[in-house]
Amino acid sequence: MEKFVYMFSEGKASMRNLLGGKGANLAEMTGLGLPVPRGFTVSTEACMRYYQDGETISTAIEDEIFQTLEKAERIIGKKFGDVDDPLLVSVRSGARASMPGMMDTILNLGLNDTVVQGLAKLTDNERFAYDSYRRFIAMFSDVVMEVPKDKFEAVLDEVKEETGASLDTDLDANAMKEVVRRFKKLYEDIKGIPFPQEPREQLIEAIKAVFRSWNNERAIIYRRMNDIPASWGTAVNVQEMVYGNMGETSGTGVAFTRNPSTGEKKLYGEFLMNAQGEDVVAGIRTPQTIDHLNDVMPDVYEQFCQIADKLEQHYKDMQDMEFTIERGRLFMLQTRNGKRTAAAAMKIAVDLVAEGMNTKKEALLKIDPKQLDALLHPTFEPKALKSAASIARGLPASPGAAGGQVYFNAKDAAEAAVRGEKVILVRLETSPEDIEGMNASQGILTGRGGMTSHAAVVARGMGKCCVSGCSELMINEKGRFFTTKDGQRINEGDFLSLDGTTGSVYSGLLPTTDASLSGDFATIMAWADEERKLKIRTNADTARDAAKAVELGAEGIGLCRTEHMFFEKDRIFAFRQMIVAENEAKRRAALEKILPMQRDDFVSLFEVMRGMPVTIRLLDPPLHEFLPQADQEIKELAQELDLSFEALRDIIFSLHEINPMMGHRGCRLAVTYPEIAEMQTRAIIEAAIAVNHNGMSVIPEIMVPLICDAAELRFVKSIITKTADEIIKEAGVDLTYTVGTMIEIPRAALTADEIAEAAEVFSFGTNDLTQMTYGLSRDDAGRILDTYYSRKIFESDPTARLDLAGVGKLMRIATDLGRQARPHIKLGICGEHGGDPASITFCHELGFDYVSCSPFRVPIARLAAAQAALADDTHLGQK
Amino acid sequence: MEKFVYMFSEGKASMRNLLGGKGANLAEMTGLGLPVPRGFTVSTEACMRYYQDGETISTAIEDEIFQTLEKAERIIGKKFGDVDDPLLVSVRSGARASMPGMMDTILNLGLNDTVVQGLAKLTDNERFAYDSYRRFIAMFSDVVMEVPKDKFEAVLDEVKEETGASLDTDLDANAMKEVVRRFKKLYEDIKGIPFPQEPREQLIEAIKAVFRSWNNERAIIYRRMNDIPASWGTAVNVQEMVYGNMGETSGTGVAFTRNPSTGEKKLYGEFLMNAQGEDVVAGIRTPQTIDHLNDVMPDVYEQFCQIADKLEQHYKDMQDMEFTIERGRLFMLQTRNGKRTAAAAMKIAVDLVAEGMNTKKEALLKIDPKQLDALLHPTFEPKALKSAASIARGLPASPGAAGGQVYFNAKDAAEAAVRGEKVILVRLETSPEDIEGMNASQGILTGRGGMTSHAAVVARGMGKCCVSGCSELMINEKGRFFTTKDGQRINEGDFLSLDGTTGSVYSGLLPTTDASLSGDFATIMAWADEERKLKIRTNADTARDAAKAVELGAEGIGLCRTEHMFFEKDRIFAFRQMIVAENEAKRRAALEKILPMQRDDFVSLFEVMRGMPVTIRLLDPPLHEFLPQADQEIKELAQELDLSFEALRDIIFSLHEINPMMGHRGCRLAVTYPEIAEMQTRAIIEAAIAVNHNGMSVIPEIMVPLICDAAELRFVKSIITKTADEIIKEAGVDLTYTVGTMIEIPRAALTADEIAEAAEVFSFGTNDLTQMTYGLSRDDAGRILDTYYSRKIFESDPTARLDLAGVGKLMRIATDLGRQARPHIKLGICGEHGGDPASITFCHELGFDYVSCSPFRVPIARLAAAQAALADDTHLGQK
Repeated sequence: MEKFVYMFSEGKASMRNLLGGKGANLAEMTGLGLPVPRGFTVSTEACMRYYQDGETISTAIEDEIFQTLEKAERIIGKKFGDVDDPLLVSVRSGARASMPGMMDTILNLGLNDTVVQGLAKLTDNERFAYDSYRRFIAMFSDVVMEVPKDKFEAVLDEVKEETGASLDTDLDANAMKEVVRRFKKLYEDIKGIPFPQEPREQLIEAIKAVFRSWNNERAIIYRRMNDIPASWGTAVNVQEMVYGNMGETSGTGVAFTRNPSTGEKKLYGEFLMNAQGEDVVAGIRTPQTIDHLNDVMPDVYEQFCQIADKLEQHYKDMQDMEFTIERGRLFMLQTRNGKRTAAAAMKIAVDLVAEGMNTKKEALLKIDPKQLDALLHPTFEPKALKSAASIARGLPASPGAAGGQVYFNAKDAAEAAVRGEKVILVRLETSPEDIEGMNASQGILTGRGGMTSHAAVVARGMGKCCVSGCSELMINEKGRFFTTKDGQRINEGDFLSLDGTTGSVYSGLLPTTDASLSGDFATIMAWADEERKLKIRTNADTARDAAKAVELGAEGIGLCRTEHMFFEKDRIFAFRQMIVAENEAKRRAALEKILPMQRDDFVSLFEVMRGMPVTIRLLDPPLHEFLPQADQEIKELAQELDLSFEALRDIIFSLHEINPMMGHRGCRLAVTYPEIAEMQTRAIIEAAIAVNHNGMSVIPEIMVPLICDAAELRFVKSIITKTADEIIKEAGVDLTYTVGTMIEIPRAALTADEIAEAAEVFSFGTNDLTQMTYGLSRDDAGRILDTYYSRKIFESDPTARLDLAGVGKLMRIATDLGRQARPHIKLGICGEHGGDPASITFCHELGFDYVSCSPFRVPIARLAAAQAALADDTHLGQK
Repeated sequence: MEKFVYMFSEGKASMRNLLGGKGANLAEMTGLGLPVPRGFTVSTEACMRYYQDGETISTAIEDEIFQTLEKAERIIGKKFGDVDDPLLVSVRSGARASMPGMMDTILNLGLNDTVVQGLAKLTDNERFAYDSYRRFIAMFSDVVMEVPKDKFEAVLDEVKEETGASLDTDLDANAMKEVVRRFKKLYEDIKGIPFPQEPREQLIEAIKAVFRSWNNERAIIYRRMNDIPASWGTAVNVQEMVYGNMGETSGTGVAFTRNPSTGEKKLYGEFLMNAQGEDVVAGIRTPQTIDHLNDVMPDVYEQFCQIADKLEQHYKDMQDMEFTIERGRLFMLQTRNGKRTAAAAMKIAVDLVAEGMNTKKEALLKIDPKQLDALLHPTFEPKALKSAASIARGLPASPGAAGGQVYFNAKDAAEAAVRGEKVILVRLETSPEDIEGMNASQGILTGRGGMTSHAAVVARGMGKCCVSGCSELMINEKGRFFTTKDGQRINEGDFLSLDGTTGSVYSGLLPTTDASLSGDFATIMAWADEERKLKIRTNADTARDAAKAVELGAEGIGLCRTEHMFFEKDRIFAFRQMIVAENEAKRRAALEKILPMQRDDFVSLFEVMRGMPVTIRLLDPPLHEFLPQADQEIKELAQELDLSFEALRDIIFSLHEINPMMGHRGCRLAVTYPEIAEMQTRAIIEAAIAVNHNGMSVIPEIMVPLICDAAELRFVKSIITKTADEIIKEAGVDLTYTVGTMIEIPRAALTADEIAEAAEVFSFGTNDLTQMTYGLSRDDAGRILDTYYSRKIFESDPTARLDLAGVGKLMRIATDLGRQARPHIKLGICGEHGGDPASITFCHELGFDYVSCSPFRVPIARLAAAQAALADDTHLGQK
């Protein structure tokens, strides 16, 4: 028979998936002989069964719960509902992953009208008994029966007013009895039935409520933000109550074995005497720091210090503990690996290795790669953040904190920056035309587009803060203002602050703290580099970005998008001449002008990369992105180009596409205008020859985008090799170069065997591949995704988190087929997922050669790649 | 050793893939003992080897050619280059599939300055010898050495003028010698070397030229139009020359065993005495009908009739034969199954079965399903077509012929039709707004969009002629005119004719012939129905279309696109109210108005279909398609809707998407606005109940579009079943309905196992699936495809011909996964490919339950499905 309920004495820490984190650690502490109030855990599998059974608990599981309860009663020596010595319990959720405050808790369960009298007698404390009862009624009603908490608070306030009490603690036993009476009446008025008096009924209803809470809105949002699957479910812990509010020898507190902000090795925490956990949270009285416990109850402090030490040694990690002292006796209510800042994580990891508690490998596995972001970008000062009110929230598209004056178009932003202003660029959406303005801004805010919209991708590449897809704002670019959903209006020139790590938008200018990298960071990165198998490259389009990435540990460029180079002022004109040219000869003439500039770009890039591999992608975006859309700008450009306004407008109109993402772009440009690919190849090869002449040894990798058919690649490759081989021959030098292809269209993945015959490298462009596999345009997904989250259809944005079931399946098909045709084909990823730890693990599993990500994600990728490699060992060990 | 060259006596008809059609049939006739000039065939494999070897003939193959030549010389008793009795040969291409006139031919090869003298002596006809030589020089120079034909014609004209000759036949032997002299000089002047005198060199160069001609432009276009793969290659036939121009007992002709226009059983053909094949083609003298041969040479006629009969009996099909009579002796130069009109194909098939020559199954396999189109649509009168000049050519998007006055927007077109004009609607591209105007028109011409653009799909559904993607026209919708690439201007109101079967556009009004279906057609269809395993359904949105489809044999509706219903005048307003509603309550109020109309639509549809299955797809297109885009129309609508112009414009702007194909459409509408899906479900179920009340038994199939994830389908399905089950319960009736999903997004195919758990039917929407698998938008593909054809990257339009390598692979994955989860899941196809014979074969192979296509393609699908089923038997037989 399946087992769904476990006594704490039956579990252990490794049973976390089944018992949840809290339950597993309670079991582990019980096993270690630590003072843990006794109880049992209803497993996560029972939770999933509850949902499978249409949100009911089966009779079998209910029976098992009561059988285990009886076992607990025998051990504890108290009975549920016993008037003389009643067993009272807490009922708490506990999922596999820590989800602090996300789910519901019920205390003092087991109380009823008669038991409360027994409790009063037993504790010789009538006020305590009725205080406990009224807390139970309110919690149970709120959590289990959905009677709003504030209704009970209103009743409590009434009684306080009537009795002239200002604090809850001013209420005496009689007042508490009155509160209980009125609470029960309130319950009955709303629910139409009396408050349940049967403890077993209370218990089952409470367990159901915890199961239900797994799917409440804040749990869903938290899961989405933290990539926790809905299928995990939560366990429920039923535990004997202990009371920190039984007088001055009772108390409750929380503590960390090390400082979670700095990592300093010193017990860190606070406690409050004569209080329950919720009182600490309520913040009415100010708790004392943990070391003062030594003054109040030195024996208990000593015992706690020993336990803390034992737990840290046992778990080999910094612990976050909750405890209660009941009448001088210490009880441990929880321990878990403590959350910590990125800086603390670095220090603790290095210290634990130095102390011999962890090996380097163990230390590496304990750091969350995503946390590193915080080390690399400025953040708002925590104090300032406390008093600031967020006026809107969008997607956390590119981390960091920034403030400045608002401008609504790239030109104005750039001009304001020249005047010395700090600028926040606000746009409905950005396009490649906006690059200069984005570059001039401190941060970017857009009304549309997801985590991989143009704004998001470019901002991450620049290491610039960006909040995207803030659809609740009404942005009026022409009118140069936006309004929030509360009607607040922000005009051009007003100050605004953006938190790209959380997606929050603040009005006014919040002070920021700069990023700083400690020596511990370098130590951790060095350890990571020893372990990882994947090479880490970067997506960089400029020498500056490339230099930053190299500083952060990049070992090559996995994606240089050449189109960004065309937007710079000195070359956009020649590029536009090329686009409007009515024949090949004129097009070639315009390309001639661009050639030396593009060659110089590559020279600088190669010089920065000093012989490391550099993958350069041929022109990708549709040509219309390079032309203006507004009449006034068209007029100006027409004059410059010596065309009539109508003629230029017609050209622009003729380039218009209904679905540009699936239109005339990528290698399709090279097929229709081979001269562009020729020019780019020439620039790459000539730059490589020039740089190698100066003593380097660059091996350029030319990457053909948007291939959907092998014949297409063969055609473009023939242009590249013909051009390159001629130049190399003329120069009389030895130069090796490779030609690879992006795999970013589903059909390329499905026919990867044919394609691999012409491609030396596959670089998975998972941005486009995800969009096409889902049939979902990242630029249009914003509104849709919001609904999909709220309807529980999607748990996360597929353009931000690699979809293994669909896109991952295609990647596996392509990898297998590609290797069939070319066993040692080089494999990499250059989509945004290249910087996502879970995706990096997947790439490691597929045996990729490298991942490529934006410069600021390189450290994250280094660590994630190391963790993926270490996971292999772990799996090996488990087999 | 591999064999690349075959004597005619070594081959047979079944070796067509290796020897080409012409070569295989020459071999077969040789084997039958018929009088065939002797020779040999260089195989299609030699052609492919020629391309693999970088367009050279390897020494091994060259040796084999000469060895076979020597064998032929021994049998014939003449030698190449022998002055006394020279062997002269023709060199002709011959591919697997007949490609009439697509590739090149050289006659009289083997002649040189000395051999010509021998030939003169041998034939005692100097003029004949030099005439042959000059023809050879011109042909060889043109075909092999790319010296343009017209230069030789100019020289010939010179000599004619100098000698006062008006016809070629007026030139005497001396004049011919002079022509030869000047031809040779012309050759040497242009090529810089003398005309080759070595017959073996002539032969090898000629064979190479035929191989090259496989990839000339007209061959490529022909292959694309007829779905012939480039990888087939062509064979080359080298055959002893026989001469029809050796005087009055010589001649040449062509004949069919039955009339290729009507199918009548009577020898049909023509001949010309004292002439070569090219003279017949040149049309200077008028040939006589074949029965007159009986008057001229009764013995030869008698022999020919016997041969014709023998060949028809042998091939069991109507034959198309070429013959030459040399000095009273009959030679057969070619036989093949004759091309015939659709009407003739029907009659011949039925007659051949009646005559006992074919079984029904054999007859079915001999009809090209695509030909049936011509039976179902009007065509231009052939006479009128001969004298009409096409002014432009687009894609043959929907077959038929139509003419009328040109209008440039749907409203004007509809108004003109009300006035009684016949209308041709000309648009850059059409959108759902244009439906009424399209319906009012005789034919539609668009400047953009491919074979599956909106215009094409809707026109095919309506059975209306359409030419799409005519990108060579400059269409000025505002100015109400277009200009052709030759500068011809067509204004509003001018007459225009369209041939949707060929893609040709004509100015003026050409007379048309109406379609008529013979009894033979019904016979063939009945035979097809006996054989096929696939059910044939139709894509129909209106009762009228559905009725037409049922008349043509449809067994159900595979796709009813509900959105088209919303465009009708009486409901578009309510639908627009729904779109602009600022909250759910207003949206529901607007939907309430639409409900009865939609219900009536379904009632009519169900009534027409009389209990046959009807699949109704929920709303699919993005909402912005239902709103106007032009300021004036927005103003008008704003007034009607009681909104300010700005407010409506803002709503329209907010609905704008960058890539609408991958945006807020399909089931994403049902997720964001469940009330729309509810209303549609209600309309469907209430209609079914009403109709069943009248004694029918409809089982509606509700189809959810654009699913990319199983959770999405579960959500939408729950809306459908909740609504439907409530209505059914309230009505107190028994009604069965099914819920299925479109598989039209790659991810749906890749996760089809999960999706099948919630779907009772998979309907493959191969239009969208192809676009997303290729990352190519059908609306933007026009320009790209042209280049891709000319660069030989694509051989056909993937949206018109199902791509087995990519899209087909996804379909197979989805089919396999779907059956894993639900073994008897119903499978169908409703994309445009559902009417394409090759795709139907594929669906048959995958074991689909049905294919669904536009009404006018139903007969094609019936025949193609029968052929696919028969192919199973054939495979069985061959194993």
